[in-house]
Formats: sequence, C-alpha cells, structure tokens
Amino acid sequence: MQLKEPGVVVGVSNRHVHLSQEDLEKLFGKGYELTPLRPLGQPGQYASEECVDLIGPKGSFQKVRILGPVRKESQVEISRTDSFKLGVPPPVRDSGDIEGTPGITIKGPVGEIQLKKGVIIAKRHIHMHPKDAEHYGVKDKDLVSVYCDKEGRRLIFQDVLVRVSEKYALEFHVDIDEANAALLNNGDYVKIIEKF
Amino acid sequence: MQLKEPGVVVGVSNRHVHLSQEDLEKLFGKGYELTPLRPLGQPGQYASEECVDLIGPKGSFQKVRILGPVRKESQVEISRTDSFKLGVPPPVRDSGDIEGTPGITIKGPVGEIQLKKGVIIAKRHIHMHPKDAEHYGVKDKDLVSVYCDKEGRRLIFQDVLVRVSEKYALEFHVDIDEANAALLNNGDYVKIIEKF
Repeated sequence: MQLKEPGVVVGVSNRHVHLSQEDLEKLFGKGYELTPLRPLGQPGQYASEECVDLIGPKGSFQKVRILGPVRKESQVEISRTDSFKLGVPPPVRDSGDIEGTPGITIKGPVGEIQLKKGVIIAKRHIHMHPKDAEHYGVKDKDLVSVYCDKEGRRLIFQDVLVRVSEKYALEFHVDIDEANAALLNNGDYVKIIEKF
Repeated sequence: MQLKEPGVVVGVSNRHVHLSQEDLEKLFGKGYELTPLRPLGQPGQYASEECVDLIGPKGSFQKVRILGPVRKESQVEISRTDSFKLGVPPPVRDSGDIEGTPGITIKGPVGEIQLKKGVIIAKRHIHMHPKDAEHYGVKDKDLVSVYCDKEGRRLIFQDVLVRVSEKYALEFHVDIDEANAALLNNGDYVKIIEKF
C-alpha cells in the first residue's frame, strides 16, 4: 500500500445543527444572532453557545450544538447510532445535498420548528485548499481512500469525498461511529492512499 | 481487489455480558440458571432472558443482555461509544483475553458485584469451521481484511481475527460502532479480501 504524505488531521463531528436565519429566529426570537463559543477547524466556522433539542418519533436529544454562521438552509447532521435512537432514517449525504431527506422537530427556547427535510448522515470527507489538492493530486468531488493505523482496528475508509475550496483548511471529517470503529480521536492523523 | 467467494454473513453485537456461574449466583441467587431466550449465530450460544445493569464511574446502562451459557470468567463487551458514556476505558481484545482490562459494577435483581477485570471492546472477528478455514485458505488467529460494499460508506476492515473451531458457524462479528461506520446490518454479507 502506497500512502500520500503528509498525513491529514482528523476532526470528529458529533451530532450538530446548521440553521437558516429564518429558522434561528423562530427558535430564538426575532433578530437573534448566534454567539460564537469556539472556532472549528474550518476558517470562519464556529460552535455557537446556542443549543437546541432534536425530537424524533422514537426519541430525542437535548442540547445539540448549533454550528455557525447561519446557512441558506437548515440541516441536521447525526450519526447512524443517533438515527436509531431518534427513529429518523437519514441517508449518507454530502453537506447541503438535502433533497428527499427526512425532517425532524427542532425545539429552541422561544419556539419549535418542524423541519420538512435536512436530516443527513454526513458523508465522510476531506476539506482541502487548492494548494493541498495540487499536492495530493486530487480535485473537488473526487472519492479517495484513507488509511487509519490504530493498532487492533486498522481500517481503510473508501468513499471519502474530497472538497476543495480557497476557504478550506486540510481536515478529514468523520462522525462518531466512524471515529469509534477506527479508534480515531480529534487531532489524530490519517493517510490518503495513493495505490493499494 | 480480489475477493474470496462466497461472502460471510454479518452478526452485529450490541453490548452484552458473559457471566461465571459464581457471579451469576451473586446477581440472581444461589443455584440460579440462565433461561435461553433465543439462539445466537454460533451453535449452543444464546441470548438469555436475564439482563443486568452496568454501572461505571460516569454513567450506566440498564437491561444489558446476558449471553449464555455461563463461562469460566465473567466478561463485559461494550462499544467504544458505550465506554465514553460509562467512563470505563477498555482495550480492543479478543474474547477471553481479559488480563489487565478494567472492571465495572454489575447489578442484578439479588445482588451487585464489583468486577475487577473483564471489560473489553471485542476485536472484530470471523468465526469459522475448519472446513471454512480450508476453503478460504486461512487458519486460527490469522488476521484478514474484509470488504464491506455499502454504497457511500464502502470500507475495508483490517485486523479481522480468524477464529476456527469445530463448534463454530461462519459469521463475521462486529460491534455497533463498526456496523454503523459501514452501514452494516445483521444478515448482510461481506467478503474476505484475497489480494489488494
């Protein structure tokens, strides 16, 4: 197996919510703005102080973090484990690709919304700057394979979506299920596979 | 990639407990015997009607299934997700290899025990009969790689332990984290990789 150097840092995503300004105001009140709590790995993105509850037909989660800034459309990202608990069956999708996905109830301190669509299991992906893409010899929307080397649970993730933008920093995003299957933690490094 | 035919059926393990007769009696009463509820994939193994509570320093799980029959030593198998909730840090181990593993409190209807050791994250493995081993060209304790083909989350598990015994039926065992990372369900089929 031939690996591309250097490694890519791992960011593990827990369940979280992106909101449109309209939905944010329904949940928190007119003219409400998110309060950044801490920056995320991607420039300009942040975990906000605000949380909401997710309510599915089978179960619910309290205090689910909102990530900012606000987006054009609301979107809820959960793990497959979460989906069984909520009773909501989301597909594995790239962020923003929410046509035909299930909805969910979101509850905030001021109001509640019935999201009609937007619940997804995020497709694992690597954010990278065009300079990184050039270095690794890949382009936006390529699917690559990634080798994780944790002893006892070594694993190769295929179907890893490459996302290239001037705004992105190099980071491999997986959800909690994927991280646990491979014993990955935030800040670990994995390698893109050049050739099997 | 060259795959070995035919595929191997998937068995997804949720958190569960194996008990020694001594520990069973401490939890359920003197002379107690497990009541089989349903057979498991491996001949002679069964899910019992009896459940216990697992109590860790950070959290607990109620109604965790006991698998029978009783064993020489008690053992608790949890996922990495579970380990964070309980606050217990188990290693990834083959079943029965419990030296140096953490303990946990187990509560039954009659009593409670402080298990000194025995909490593990089960190492993914394939049970097989010697005839299967011959067919696939592997032997007991080999590590093989397994290809899972669910669209969008295709994945290769390395470090898959082969367990061969006259008593075993062909079955690939993963825990919930691994199943969810690969979108696997009970009864799905995966393939052993012959060559990359």
